[in-house]
Amino acid sequence: MSDPASFRSEHDLLGTLVVPAEAYYGIQTLRARHNFRLSGVPLSHYPRLVVALAMVKQAAADANHSLGLLPSARHASIVEACSRIVRGEFHDQFVVDMIQGGAGTSTNMNANEVIANIGLEAMGHARGEYRYLHPNNDVNMSQSTNDAYPTAIRLGLLLGHDTLLASLDSLCQALRHKGSEFSGVLKMGRTQLQDAVPMTLGQEFNAFATTLGEDLHHLRRLVPELLCEVNLGGTAIGTGINSDPRYQGLAVQRLAEISGQPLVSAADLIEATSDMGAFVMLSGMFKRLAVKLSKVCNDLRLLSSGPRTGINEINLPPRQPGSSIMPGKVNPVIPEAVNQVAFEVIGNDLALTLAAEAGQLQLNVMEPLIVYKLFDSVRLLQRAMDMLREHCITGITANIEHCRALVENSIGLATALNPFIGYENATRIARQALAQGRGVLELVREERLLDEHRLAEILRPDNMIAPRLAPAPS
Amino acid sequence: MSDPASFRSEHDLLGTLVVPAEAYYGIQTLRARHNFRLSGVPLSHYPRLVVALAMVKQAAADANHSLGLLPSARHASIVEACSRIVRGEFHDQFVVDMIQGGAGTSTNMNANEVIANIGLEAMGHARGEYRYLHPNNDVNMSQSTNDAYPTAIRLGLLLGHDTLLASLDSLCQALRHKGSEFSGVLKMGRTQLQDAVPMTLGQEFNAFATTLGEDLHHLRRLVPELLCEVNLGGTAIGTGINSDPRYQGLAVQRLAEISGQPLVSAADLIEATSDMGAFVMLSGMFKRLAVKLSKVCNDLRLLSSGPRTGINEINLPPRQPGSSIMPGKVNPVIPEAVNQVAFEVIGNDLALTLAAEAGQLQLNVMEPLIVYKLFDSVRLLQRAMDMLREHCITGITANIEHCRALVENSIGLATALNPFIGYENATRIARQALAQGRGVLELVREERLLDEHRLAEILRPDNMIAPRLAPAPS
Amino acid sequence: MSDPASFRSEHDLLGTLVVPAEAYYGIQTLRARHNFRLSGVPLSHYPRLVVALAMVKQAAADANHSLGLLPSARHASIVEACSRIVRGEFHDQFVVDMIQGGAGTSTNMNANEVIANIGLEAMGHARGEYRYLHPNNDVNMSQSTNDAYPTAIRLGLLLGHDTLLASLDSLCQALRHKGSEFSGVLKMGRTQLQDAVPMTLGQEFNAFATTLGEDLHHLRRLVPELLCEVNLGGTAIGTGINSDPRYQGLAVQRLAEISGQPLVSAADLIEATSDMGAFVMLSGMFKRLAVKLSKVCNDLRLLSSGPRTGINEINLPPRQPGSSIMPGKVNPVIPEAVNQVAFEVIGNDLALTLAAEAGQLQLNVMEPLIVYKLFDSVRLLQRAMDMLREHCITGITANIEHCRALVENSIGLATALNPFIGYENATRIARQALAQGRGVLELVREERLLDEHRLAEILRPDNMIAPRLAPAPS
Amino acid sequence: MSDPASFRSEHDLLGTLVVPAEAYYGIQTLRARHNFRLSGVPLSHYPRLVVALAMVKQAAADANHSLGLLPSARHASIVEACSRIVRGEFHDQFVVDMIQGGAGTSTNMNANEVIANIGLEAMGHARGEYRYLHPNNDVNMSQSTNDAYPTAIRLGLLLGHDTLLASLDSLCQALRHKGSEFSGVLKMGRTQLQDAVPMTLGQEFNAFATTLGEDLHHLRRLVPELLCEVNLGGTAIGTGINSDPRYQGLAVQRLAEISGQPLVSAADLIEATSDMGAFVMLSGMFKRLAVKLSKVCNDLRLLSSGPRTGINEINLPPRQPGSSIMPGKVNPVIPEAVNQVAFEVIGNDLALTLAAEAGQLQLNVMEPLIVYKLFDSVRLLQRAMDMLREHCITGITANIEHCRALVENSIGLATALNPFIGYENATRIARQALAQGRGVLELVREERLLDEHRLAEILRPDNMIAPRLAPAPS
Repeated sequence: MSDPASFRSEHDLLGTLVVPAEAYYGIQTLRARHNFRLSGVPLSHYPRLVVALAMVKQAAADANHSLGLLPSARHASIVEACSRIVRGEFHDQFVVDMIQGGAGTSTNMNANEVIANIGLEAMGHARGEYRYLHPNNDVNMSQSTNDAYPTAIRLGLLLGHDTLLASLDSLCQALRHKGSEFSGVLKMGRTQLQDAVPMTLGQEFNAFATTLGEDLHHLRRLVPELLCEVNLGGTAIGTGINSDPRYQGLAVQRLAEISGQPLVSAADLIEATSDMGAFVMLSGMFKRLAVKLSKVCNDLRLLSSGPRTGINEINLPPRQPGSSIMPGKVNPVIPEAVNQVAFEVIGNDLALTLAAEAGQLQLNVMEPLIVYKLFDSVRLLQRAMDMLREHCITGITANIEHCRALVENSIGLATALNPFIGYENATRIARQALAQGRGVLELVREERLLDEHRLAEILRPDNMIAPRLAPAPS
Repeated sequence: MSDPASFRSEHDLLGTLVVPAEAYYGIQTLRARHNFRLSGVPLSHYPRLVVALAMVKQAAADANHSLGLLPSARHASIVEACSRIVRGEFHDQFVVDMIQGGAGTSTNMNANEVIANIGLEAMGHARGEYRYLHPNNDVNMSQSTNDAYPTAIRLGLLLGHDTLLASLDSLCQALRHKGSEFSGVLKMGRTQLQDAVPMTLGQEFNAFATTLGEDLHHLRRLVPELLCEVNLGGTAIGTGINSDPRYQGLAVQRLAEISGQPLVSAADLIEATSDMGAFVMLSGMFKRLAVKLSKVCNDLRLLSSGPRTGINEINLPPRQPGSSIMPGKVNPVIPEAVNQVAFEVIGNDLALTLAAEAGQLQLNVMEPLIVYKLFDSVRLLQRAMDMLREHCITGITANIEHCRALVENSIGLATALNPFIGYENATRIARQALAQGRGVLELVREERLLDEHRLAEILRPDNMIAPRLAPAPS
Repeated sequence: MSDPASFRSEHDLLGTLVVPAEAYYGIQTLRARHNFRLSGVPLSHYPRLVVALAMVKQAAADANHSLGLLPSARHASIVEACSRIVRGEFHDQFVVDMIQGGAGTSTNMNANEVIANIGLEAMGHARGEYRYLHPNNDVNMSQSTNDAYPTAIRLGLLLGHDTLLASLDSLCQALRHKGSEFSGVLKMGRTQLQDAVPMTLGQEFNAFATTLGEDLHHLRRLVPELLCEVNLGGTAIGTGINSDPRYQGLAVQRLAEISGQPLVSAADLIEATSDMGAFVMLSGMFKRLAVKLSKVCNDLRLLSSGPRTGINEINLPPRQPGSSIMPGKVNPVIPEAVNQVAFEVIGNDLALTLAAEAGQLQLNVMEPLIVYKLFDSVRLLQRAMDMLREHCITGITANIEHCRALVENSIGLATALNPFIGYENATRIARQALAQGRGVLELVREERLLDEHRLAEILRPDNMIAPRLAPAPS
Repeated sequence: MSDPASFRSEHDLLGTLVVPAEAYYGIQTLRARHNFRLSGVPLSHYPRLVVALAMVKQAAADANHSLGLLPSARHASIVEACSRIVRGEFHDQFVVDMIQGGAGTSTNMNANEVIANIGLEAMGHARGEYRYLHPNNDVNMSQSTNDAYPTAIRLGLLLGHDTLLASLDSLCQALRHKGSEFSGVLKMGRTQLQDAVPMTLGQEFNAFATTLGEDLHHLRRLVPELLCEVNLGGTAIGTGINSDPRYQGLAVQRLAEISGQPLVSAADLIEATSDMGAFVMLSGMFKRLAVKLSKVCNDLRLLSSGPRTGINEINLPPRQPGSSIMPGKVNPVIPEAVNQVAFEVIGNDLALTLAAEAGQLQLNVMEPLIVYKLFDSVRLLQRAMDMLREHCITGITANIEHCRALVENSIGLATALNPFIGYENATRIARQALAQGRGVLELVREERLLDEHRLAEILRPDNMIAPRLAPAPS
């Protein structure tokens, strides 16, 4: 602090602090930095949250201006500041830790202070000359953290939602593409890790696409509905105290226009101020997606296990040498990483659940953790899905001959022959095959239970993998 | 086993066992009982699951009969048996532990065996004379555990859904009723457990009703959609192997008719066989409801804390003496029990999540735990909501005078006076009140900042709890 | 209620109720039954908890008697009643639901009332004639729920601990026994589900025994230490209010004598009244055991997968027919059930964690859920371990030839040959084997890189599965 | 990539890539960066993990050198490189994402490559000239990721353990200090949020110190024991394949010397390679600490609630303005942040538990997530405890008069008077006080049940907060 020119002095209810001269944030942001050195993850880590905060501030300023509460010059400078933040110019000024006490007050004040100081510059004033544009009185006019912050969270999540959906959609398509590619690859299905009955590898990949496609459907349909109700205008606890009765409607309408999102006012603002239900449900849907991704990746690892002492039906593209000590070993590193992301998302869901349950009376003070975990899960899921698609799914190949050999060597073939040779024969042949280490087909041929023509017909993939009429009793 | 007449002998692939003569279940059920002595909770603990199993068996029998696969006499006896189970006559025969290996095979066989033996009796045969009606060949015809069991789970949950909704609806109404009753009770709102601004106790209870009402809305709308797609007809892994191509459509249609539920065939039966997504989402919604119930009960306990050293704004009806050692103490036992149910439901959700993630390849063998935890959560939530309504909500009374005294003594009143006396006056008065232990109103009167008429106007509940126009600048 | 003789009338602070004449419990227990119809699991489901409650009551009575506070006749009848409960005569009278509000008051009163009425009978009085022996004044003398109940929980867990340890110990021994049996079975080790390097099946089973043995060690050593500190004598909040200063020491000493457990007084009774730390840690240890059991069972299912399209190195004993539709299929039902128990225990740990976190000020009112989940986890783990040992581990057999064939066919063999043929040769051979679908040994022989004598030496199991000196460079 | 001088070319099994010329890491690290863009948290975020990796590499090099396997020049350069890393010179070169597939191979190779290139520079060679010092052949000599990585994790945790303990210890002392400061402040104890019986505020803070002190005790005693067994020398799966039989002992002994930690070889290296038990238990202990911190902070928030409409027994030091809209509001932001950290740690524990359960056969490939979550929990807990102590606990003050007024106004006082005025009088007075809104003392005085001298004696804090002899019956 040797050079006084590099600092400016600010004060608040608790006293005076010096703020770095170049900082657009102010004293309250600085206090929050001193108070909360926890996760090390600043607000700027999630740009859409920053953008959403700026949009909320602009909408409020527009509403206040149109009600005659905010003078035009101040309004113009706030609008200018918000626009520049939306364009990404000042993200590095959003420095508060994602984990913070105060129910988001520090996040809200970080936005108020940065906007005020950008605006002051635009008006030709120095940073910190808040008498010309005040973080609280002007930027935060008609707002409370308790309505501006939850509104920004919802909006921030909505702003990123399409990107998440796009990643999920691309992954589904890649899986569906493999489903087509492998539609002729006959293989054994397995239940309880035991040989069951035949199917195609294409059916298996299509099922992956289907199961993730259901999440795409639910996320696309439900999330906008869950998030579009905002409590902007409720101020401190939802009663709208100290705001103009016309403010709420105007502010929400402007926010919808600015953001292009279908935002509406929540019907019960008291409830909307403290309710975390939408976030719990959203996180639950992310958890569900994580569970499915993990299951798919578990299957990919099982199906590619080997190459000699495992199942070895498919090959994952090699991404990095697998072992310094074991020549030639290549590992399923991409699905393994997805599994871990899934576990982290499930852990995030629990942290969020605990935070949601801990709300008390008219507010949930744990909301900063909730927003942190939600944005973290979105990012992790999106990155993991992109990684899985690009670095794994698109390069998967099938060991077609090995798949077929496993079918023909399988005891499960007896199930398919069941309707043609009878249950008693099927059971006897199955047991004999197991006991003698021989093949079911081999024994059927040896006993001449079916002729080659009939066998070929039965074993045609199309016939093995769908219901068909039982043969007429002979 | 001294009396041979009290046992009958049955055999299966693994050998022969004696079954109690009076038992309707058979050898495979008996093996499962010997294998799985775990939770101690038998299938019969969840009657709707038993009913759903019987409905599935009847639908399959109807389809098989109409395809000419199941002779009329056998069909008739199966239908008779299923009807009697649906009426609740044989629930005690469903004895297998809810936690079981085998992906539900033991549950499915318990149903098959009980139906076969009831049917045999109806046909005039002795229990165990399976050559006349066979648990596998006849009752389980065209089915696998892997399609019949998941179908029954979905149906069982659907059958109980209206009752759950009714309990939730009644609770919401009870809360809404209190919202009306307390609409004139002015009190302080609290954020971060600190005095905030005024509201009414009615608003607080209405917010409880609103927040739970959102769960009612989601559960009512989404659950039927989540659960109505069934995989009946997919047999072992979804390929429908060994079933007639017409069977699936017939069986699902009959099941919809029998149950009165809007069941349809899943589009991708391979996926539907192993997918647990609907259950994960359903459990996530139960978790959300649990989180909200817990939050509401935490608030009830806070608001009724005291009577002298807590908040004491409301009185919960006394349900039992609170302490043997402390005379006159009455505790909030009902909300406390709801909290614990909520924690259990959240724990259930985790167990279910783990089970869902553990599915492998064409089946999820952990499905028995999933169904157990779902039915358990439904029951717990329903009972807890009924208990909360009957034994707590309906008897809550307000300490109206104390609520108002807290408002008038509150520093938060300064916020309400802010637009009328100016921010500087408000802050100064607030600090003075805190420092001197005096009341805000007292000081305002002392300084004659507002006359009594104006004060009365400002402090009218209607004016305190909603936005209003700021006074014209004087 | 037509026959008045079948009921007796009791009253408490809240009024009068009729109690079934034959019931040993009284009005407060009845109120709790009416209030809490939740889990459906009564106290009697966990006999050791009932026994522990009786021991606590006896110890308190002994202390009170020796201080001259409890007359000899009343003392004698309480001791008589407690002894009979300890012997298991009245477990069915412990009817309150495990999930209850009131921080255990209902459990404590259930014990007080049952003991009073047994004692009254012993004294020649009718049930309900509490003026001769009062549930509160006599049986609960010098106690509060808040000290008697947590003390009984700790004691109840200690009483069952040896049985849990015995099950775990037996399981470890069974695994160790298989470790010896399979010590000569050479097989491939797998990392990341990919072929790695050779080991013996004995090493694999010994590792199972080792990993569970570590839990045995920790549970044996830490649990008594965690649970032996009790807060008996702290009464309502740990200050010991309304108790004789000598009472605490006497009561704890008597309880240690009666129970044979090394109980001591907690050093900070205020802390001990509300602290759930020991339970959180205990549950965490159960969770760890669950995680390990689940991993072992996952491995058993992988190793026994097949028989033709999986790993098939071991055979689990068949426990029940696996499928009605697939002849000859036998499934790993026992490990599957253990997995599910593990998931339930992990879910229990979460519910307990939430309950522990929810304690407030001088008490944790969620303690009933904590005790419920702990006793449930103990029972589930014990039963699952017994099941796993009896019905699975002891009957496991090895497919010795198949194991050896997998080793000899494995690419991983190149790693073992690495020091003898050089890294370049090893890598080249490994790639060639993979590309051509041939065996490493076959290629080594073809290229005469090693003679048969040397190969045999290298491939001896003893040499493959431990460090050894690299050959001198040639 | 316009300037070829700014890149160097490296190749591995999968081909060739260009690496930034200034990078000390190499091609395999680069592949990992391309593969895993997930958490955004690089290894360098946890310096003690980096240091531990360097120590492991040095210990291995020392052992290899002393066995004559590693030439002196190479050994010396490795030692030099490791020492510089330990001093913190190259942390920025540890760039791989904490979440990664490959079971830590990328982390291990990041260390191998950085050490090789630092060493090469020290030897006068250019980065990438691996023929003089090879990441695999030299730096990784006698090691596998599967032994080097878990060993480094354990060591890294041990290296940070004392700092964690110091933070916890300081927090306990700060609480204990407040316990002394408040030893004379009489207040009401509360159970179930209802007025119970008197205690001192000192007892309350001492109980906080005691409960956290128990965690200090357990962490101090158990963690070194849990973490000191390492599997270095087990190589790929614990058989020590391709290592010198003397290597393991030498390497572990050297590592213990270098690190100053009491490291020993695990008894069963097969088990130790895949076992995550120590991490599960460690995380469980962190979870327990988190639960306790959360409970303490919940209490601090309750006790400081108000100032007018809550409990208001204590004041937390103001850390930042609480509200822009509510003048004078100061919020408990520090405890609120601790609550959120606690929830995150509990979520971490779940993610870790899932990862631990997902281990398969001879390895747990989810270990990277496990180490990430452990290091994250350690850091979060430490920072949260420091924050809580510095910014909250040390500045807490008591509202002594208000505390005493609450006691004197409390109904719970009747409990304290019980032995002196009799249970009937006490109950009657309690009811009367409640019904009439009057004080217990007031009524006792009015009825002259006790004289002032006696009352003063009874109400002396020392007498209210500990057992004492009941008065002789008069």
